[in-house]
Amino acid sequence: MVPVTGPGNRLDPWINAYASRARGMTASEIRALFAVASRPEVVSLAGGMPYVSALNLDALADTVSDLVRNQGAYALQYGSGQGDITLRDQIGEVMAEVGINAHPDDIVVTTGSQMALDLVTRVFCDPGDAVFVEAPSYVGALGVFRAYECTVIHVPMDDQGLQPGALDEAITAARLRGLRPKMIYTIPSFHNPAGITQGPARRHEILSVAQRNGLLLLEDDPYGLLGFDDVGFGDKPPRAIRADDADGVVYLGSFSKTIASGLRVGWAVAPHGVREKLVLAAEAAVLCPSNYAQMTISSYLSTQPWRQQIKVFTETYRERRDALLNALDQHMPVGTTWTTPAGGFYSWLTLPEGLDATAMLPRAIAALVAYVPGTGFYVDGSGRQHMRLSYCYPEPDRITEGVRRLAGVIEDELQLSHTFGTSHTLTRPEGPATPAPDLQ
Amino acid sequence: MVPVTGPGNRLDPWINAYASRARGMTASEIRALFAVASRPEVVSLAGGMPYVSALNLDALADTVSDLVRNQGAYALQYGSGQGDITLRDQIGEVMAEVGINAHPDDIVVTTGSQMALDLVTRVFCDPGDAVFVEAPSYVGALGVFRAYECTVIHVPMDDQGLQPGALDEAITAARLRGLRPKMIYTIPSFHNPAGITQGPARRHEILSVAQRNGLLLLEDDPYGLLGFDDVGFGDKPPRAIRADDADGVVYLGSFSKTIASGLRVGWAVAPHGVREKLVLAAEAAVLCPSNYAQMTISSYLSTQPWRQQIKVFTETYRERRDALLNALDQHMPVGTTWTTPAGGFYSWLTLPEGLDATAMLPRAIAALVAYVPGTGFYVDGSGRQHMRLSYCYPEPDRITEGVRRLAGVIEDELQLSHTFGTSHTLTRPEGPATPAPDLQ
Repeated sequence: MVPVTGPGNRLDPWINAYASRARGMTASEIRALFAVASRPEVVSLAGGMPYVSALNLDALADTVSDLVRNQGAYALQYGSGQGDITLRDQIGEVMAEVGINAHPDDIVVTTGSQMALDLVTRVFCDPGDAVFVEAPSYVGALGVFRAYECTVIHVPMDDQGLQPGALDEAITAARLRGLRPKMIYTIPSFHNPAGITQGPARRHEILSVAQRNGLLLLEDDPYGLLGFDDVGFGDKPPRAIRADDADGVVYLGSFSKTIASGLRVGWAVAPHGVREKLVLAAEAAVLCPSNYAQMTISSYLSTQPWRQQIKVFTETYRERRDALLNALDQHMPVGTTWTTPAGGFYSWLTLPEGLDATAMLPRAIAALVAYVPGTGFYVDGSGRQHMRLSYCYPEPDRITEGVRRLAGVIEDELQLSHTFGTSHTLTRPEGPATPAPDLQ
Repeated sequence: MVPVTGPGNRLDPWINAYASRARGMTASEIRALFAVASRPEVVSLAGGMPYVSALNLDALADTVSDLVRNQGAYALQYGSGQGDITLRDQIGEVMAEVGINAHPDDIVVTTGSQMALDLVTRVFCDPGDAVFVEAPSYVGALGVFRAYECTVIHVPMDDQGLQPGALDEAITAARLRGLRPKMIYTIPSFHNPAGITQGPARRHEILSVAQRNGLLLLEDDPYGLLGFDDVGFGDKPPRAIRADDADGVVYLGSFSKTIASGLRVGWAVAPHGVREKLVLAAEAAVLCPSNYAQMTISSYLSTQPWRQQIKVFTETYRERRDALLNALDQHMPVGTTWTTPAGGFYSWLTLPEGLDATAMLPRAIAALVAYVPGTGFYVDGSGRQHMRLSYCYPEPDRITEGVRRLAGVIEDELQLSHTFGTSHTLTRPEGPATPAPDLQ
């Protein structure tokens, strides 16, 4: 065989035939470590897997059985590229919880909200276009932006999340550099990985920056209904930014954390013209979302007490969050800090000066505890002093044990650091790794 | 709001902010017609929907119920980006039917094989790269190639399918034009829309052309197990081209036509290095395929008589194919010709000289019969004299009635044409419409 642009190598004869966008597609170096970390004796504070065992599986089994038996000819058939109309109506009800009043026509159902992220980027971003994201930001979003060869610009956060002043400056600076700013990507509620939530005033400020600069605001909200504490919205879930601007915001929602991630059902709400493009892009990508998964969700929503189920999930995660925070308070050495999440799945931990979370990971796994090093949440190699701790999946006593082990590893690193100087680093910086699904 | 590149219009303020690739994303003009055509009084020979009602829905309902009840914690959770390992093993068994011997490591499960098409193109094609396809070719593939801004080059078919000599010449001509040839896309068995199958010799010739030119061969095989007649492979399904070259072919398979399209489960088999890229691209696109849909298929394959079910489907489609061919023989005016499919879902009809299938469509729908005009299967506006007739979904007597109506419309057109010259055409040529899912 004579490959397209001269022979490749024995490992991959097609190496010279790939598209330019595929050159950046490389597996994260830490993947191999996580293969080890999935052994049951390791406490994993790494994965963002929802605790789906809290669902009423018997009730769901009956629902699905009825669905296939009575509506199989529809549920097992191709469907609309935009998604099932009954489900889109129900998604409207779900979004009312975060203050959004959207017409079912403006909703596009996708194979998880990850696909909605992919489609929005596909529709808006040419190679090189600038996308503004939090520092740190969601691994899966960075993976999408990289796949479309965007220029990703991190903007600092404070305890209210993305900083509007810094955002405005970053946009201006990007324009001065000759870049074409395209969109602002933000997770306002219970941020992944930072565990921070934007209050009402901050949301308005961010929206103003977007509007003033004529940029699309891409609001990603998978955790919005999983809040524990009041963050300025009383006893209601945080009000979505989209609730205050239907023309300038694309809102992404998901059933992955409120029902089940294995169904892969998410959605986008978009201004009318954008929605049209998203549907056409979705049809090219997958023809249509699964009727089977959509109807499963739809039947679940119409026959099961879903609001009550979300309360069960929330109480489960609150208890685990408390276990994490208590254990951190009790065990972590001086100089270690972390965020206090008011909802969602994650706390963001900062190591004492001089320590390196990426370099430390093999030793943590040897001590039977795993986390995601901060570098994965940046495109530029920053984040070495940070790690993301997930409390969503392990039972509370396992979380406590995991933190105890982790604190021991950090203590040892501090000792080493005091004795020999700064800790070892891996030879290459861990970049914006293409995400492994269980590490989102 | 001040949109990115100056104000858009009232219909879409974002019109100037889209990526270059989104400019070609426009809905097909015939969509509106098909909305009318979905009324029950219209016989639709348009859609490529499998007849899923032939499944044993009670058995499937029990299978799914057991799955959720007993393995819910896994089936409802995030999974591997490459797909469930048990299912990948089973896919190996399914592919053995078409002569493929593949390791589960080389299989990537996708959200329908449409997504596999999207991922392969994403990984290989830069804007402008040349892709060689049959004339006519699958609407959904043309939609993907257009989304990635490929240069699509149609190559003529004869009664053995894609012509190797013409293919070779087209590749040479493209290189002379300064294009960068990237891949050959073919549907060797029971072609959509042409209803033609490549015999064993033709397959070898096509593979040779690909190998000699160092081009990837993308073999799309959704219908391979749905054959009625011997097309040179004895009583076995047509042997896949991939069976004879593991390094140069990416093979796409699907459960949409052998089990159920609404599950959205397909797959790609690729050379090792390509497979790695596909998994990374898949993770960026959707994180992971649905464990729920995958496990449903996996349970079905391990508990239900799937080979026997495929026989039931095949017999159903054979009966409908016969109904179509008989009715065409009986009713069509002289000068009309069509292909005789030996399997799959489609026959490709050529109208008498001077008639235009696109222009005729509104009149056909008024006469309560629908088809897909040939223009949708070309990127260059050709195909006006052709239409695709699907026999997969309507009952045989409906097919007969549909053909009778269609023949009446063609007779009337011939009358008009003899009286007033060539028939009216729509104002714009119907391009490679972004596919509507029910018209694949």
